[in-house]
Amino acid sequence: MIKVTVWNEFYHEKNNEKVRAIYPQGIHQTIADFLKCDDITVRTATLEDEQCGLTQEVLDDTDVLIWWGHVRHNDVPDEIVNRVKESVLKGMGIICLHSAHHSKIFKSLMGTTCNLSWREDGDLERVWTINPAHPIAQGVGRYFELNGVETYAEPFGIPEPDEVVFMGWYEGGEVFRTGCTFHRGNGRIFYFQPGHETFPIFHNETVQTIIRNAVRWANPVLREDALICPQVTKVHNK
Amino acid sequence: MIKVTVWNEFYHEKNNEKVRAIYPQGIHQTIADFLKCDDITVRTATLEDEQCGLTQEVLDDTDVLIWWGHVRHNDVPDEIVNRVKESVLKGMGIICLHSAHHSKIFKSLMGTTCNLSWREDGDLERVWTINPAHPIAQGVGRYFELNGVETYAEPFGIPEPDEVVFMGWYEGGEVFRTGCTFHRGNGRIFYFQPGHETFPIFHNETVQTIIRNAVRWANPVLREDALICPQVTKVHNK
Amino acid sequence: MIKVTVWNEFYHEKNNEKVRAIYPQGIHQTIADFLKCDDITVRTATLEDEQCGLTQEVLDDTDVLIWWGHVRHNDVPDEIVNRVKESVLKGMGIICLHSAHHSKIFKSLMGTTCNLSWREDGDLERVWTINPAHPIAQGVGRYFELNGVETYAEPFGIPEPDEVVFMGWYEGGEVFRTGCTFHRGNGRIFYFQPGHETFPIFHNETVQTIIRNAVRWANPVLREDALICPQVTKVHNK
Amino acid sequence: MIKVTVWNEFYHEKNNEKVRAIYPQGIHQTIADFLKCDDITVRTATLEDEQCGLTQEVLDDTDVLIWWGHVRHNDVPDEIVNRVKESVLKGMGIICLHSAHHSKIFKSLMGTTCNLSWREDGDLERVWTINPAHPIAQGVGRYFELNGVETYAEPFGIPEPDEVVFMGWYEGGEVFRTGCTFHRGNGRIFYFQPGHETFPIFHNETVQTIIRNAVRWANPVLREDALICPQVTKVHNK
Repeated sequence: MIKVTVWNEFYHEKNNEKVRAIYPQGIHQTIADFLKCDDITVRTATLEDEQCGLTQEVLDDTDVLIWWGHVRHNDVPDEIVNRVKESVLKGMGIICLHSAHHSKIFKSLMGTTCNLSWREDGDLERVWTINPAHPIAQGVGRYFELNGVETYAEPFGIPEPDEVVFMGWYEGGEVFRTGCTFHRGNGRIFYFQPGHETFPIFHNETVQTIIRNAVRWANPVLREDALICPQVTKVHNK
Repeated sequence: MIKVTVWNEFYHEKNNEKVRAIYPQGIHQTIADFLKCDDITVRTATLEDEQCGLTQEVLDDTDVLIWWGHVRHNDVPDEIVNRVKESVLKGMGIICLHSAHHSKIFKSLMGTTCNLSWREDGDLERVWTINPAHPIAQGVGRYFELNGVETYAEPFGIPEPDEVVFMGWYEGGEVFRTGCTFHRGNGRIFYFQPGHETFPIFHNETVQTIIRNAVRWANPVLREDALICPQVTKVHNK
Repeated sequence: MIKVTVWNEFYHEKNNEKVRAIYPQGIHQTIADFLKCDDITVRTATLEDEQCGLTQEVLDDTDVLIWWGHVRHNDVPDEIVNRVKESVLKGMGIICLHSAHHSKIFKSLMGTTCNLSWREDGDLERVWTINPAHPIAQGVGRYFELNGVETYAEPFGIPEPDEVVFMGWYEGGEVFRTGCTFHRGNGRIFYFQPGHETFPIFHNETVQTIIRNAVRWANPVLREDALICPQVTKVHNK
Repeated sequence: MIKVTVWNEFYHEKNNEKVRAIYPQGIHQTIADFLKCDDITVRTATLEDEQCGLTQEVLDDTDVLIWWGHVRHNDVPDEIVNRVKESVLKGMGIICLHSAHHSKIFKSLMGTTCNLSWREDGDLERVWTINPAHPIAQGVGRYFELNGVETYAEPFGIPEPDEVVFMGWYEGGEVFRTGCTFHRGNGRIFYFQPGHETFPIFHNETVQTIIRNAVRWANPVLREDALICPQVTKVHNK
């Protein structure tokens, strides 16, 4: 059983009617609902929960953390960010969605600006699978289309990914590395571009398939203290 | 002084009036003409030259080889391909243009199919710089446009590149890793997608800038025998 | 159930008493014996079998191919090598052991010389796990020792691996990228250095664990024709 | 002319006679002295200088920053670290030496623990060149030896490097990725393991060659604001 925690800043849904119409219980609940299945259990956590809902106990009991944030990145205390980062480096998987490219946790794991540019014109996006044998791409097909997205454009200020699984094509003329994997310490990281709050992206079945695949892919192989290893016996002193 | 050899199968230009109108002296001559400058000297070679113009002497005197081929890949003898490959592994740079993705030399260096799909509809291509600090991208800007290209589409059957410098957006809905670097042995490899024979791509100044940058980038750091290294003295036998 | 085929040139065991004493039924049989378990079935194939034991039917029924060869690489016909390569690019996993670094199939997939240097002095090797969260490293620990190996030394003429999982330290003063992963097309590739015919390496339990882990890791995610993808409908023509 | 700033915490040299004997003017001054040449100018900066000697003016006038620190990493204010990081992401090169693996700036750029283990037994180290065609390896040869070093051991908690240029072998049984390159944003990063304060590593000519090579390699190709790119005109709105 893979234990997932879905974290959401949960701000737009409470303050913007349009967003609430799409995600009445919040983006986190929509994601939790479609993820739950025979091998995945889900809990949720939000910014206004005690300790952002991310106590050490919760993190120790989480295999894969999903992160959605947008306008309140800076309200997540550094202490919480450091705690999450330590968990990732020890093995917890993390999936950062859409505007989470600018979350403290993603920027801290990447070491870069994670900048990009954007347009909010409801463009058609064609998401192309460029690594069809990747576990995260199973069931997706060669490409799929999203009618109405926020456009993100290169250059995307990230380190060279381990793998670019998906690339995005936007009607208005942009391209983007839409689905990228990284590993840092023992933890696996997936960034996925689609997911703006005013478009019903998380109701799209292919998007749901991709996030479910990513959860299984990011499930830890090893969870252990990534701290300094003990010294080693010298060969000739044995 | 960087010594460049431009190789062209030189078939379309002799057999297709439309192509001849664009490249009267052959694609190789057009490339040679725009490359020549203070720090670059250029010779050309074509399929029908003795030994395809690629004798050991020519290769030993070549710092960077540029390759253009399309319908006559299989007419290049394996012996010549192996000779070129050995030169690359020892340090000679190579730049493979457009349909050279299916040349024997490129496939042999990649170890993969190098397949892709294509349309020949004269689409607009926007070439995006995704690695702006790469030497090959200098002077290019954030993106540039080519009015009328042959469209290539992912998935492109190559190993993960060292660096994706450019990504292509096509009007009809495709994306492509348009400019990619690799190194194999001591040699540097650049693949660049634009360059179809019926579109005047090599007359475009930004394309010319990119190829000139790539020549300087691919200029060998080291040229030496990539054969088996001699055995090493054991530390404790010294 | 993962279907493994273990291929061995099976020459030393028939012609060298010392090797026969270590691997009486051949290296392939030893590997087959320790691999068989609840989720892995194994068949073997050798150079002198009809078509090297690698008919299209066998390859189509193989999830992961293990390759051991040393002095008879050139006796494997190109036609068989191409058939194996095509299977790998479509998704079949391949594990190349020790002297298989110079097999035709490994060199063809890498596109490089795959050269290295070596000493046959029975050095102690310490194999270090440098990527402890990699599936292939599970159960291995921080390092393990092999008393008596053939030493391999850098530089190893391979492309930059996707991941270096193990690095080798040799008593006499050498280092080597002892366990490396690659992917080419849909297929996953693992190269593992230990395994000389005159040392009983394949009787070592940690080596056995690593090869079993590698089989599970290399099990195909997708098997499909890696040939040219069909053209795509243009967005604006739909 | 490449403008280098050598930064040193400059603590051991003032507080430990043994270190002072090796580096009477400080490690920074030794490095500055051997670096100065026709194409390189050098300034130095230390922890106790005003703003650690790293004002915005200094950074804007620095092409490549060299960093040495050990026991006073935490005394570098976050504000200075952020300023340096921003400069690197905009294009300034940085070379982190030895115990700078645990400096705030290196950890922040890597996004990982950068942990390792160590012994201080004065082992012999053989530094192997595994990428002989890399610009940083020119003039080094296949390997060189340092008689008396602090041993570092894998696993080294860094992201997968762009290139592993050097690997270290230590007498007592350890291996280490001794020379690694990365790029983050527009900036190039080189980490180099040798350089402990109680061993006269920076007086070794091959080490000096490597650091000089690294300065030339890390010299910026592009220096520009890595902030958010302006939005792009849509193709069909032009």
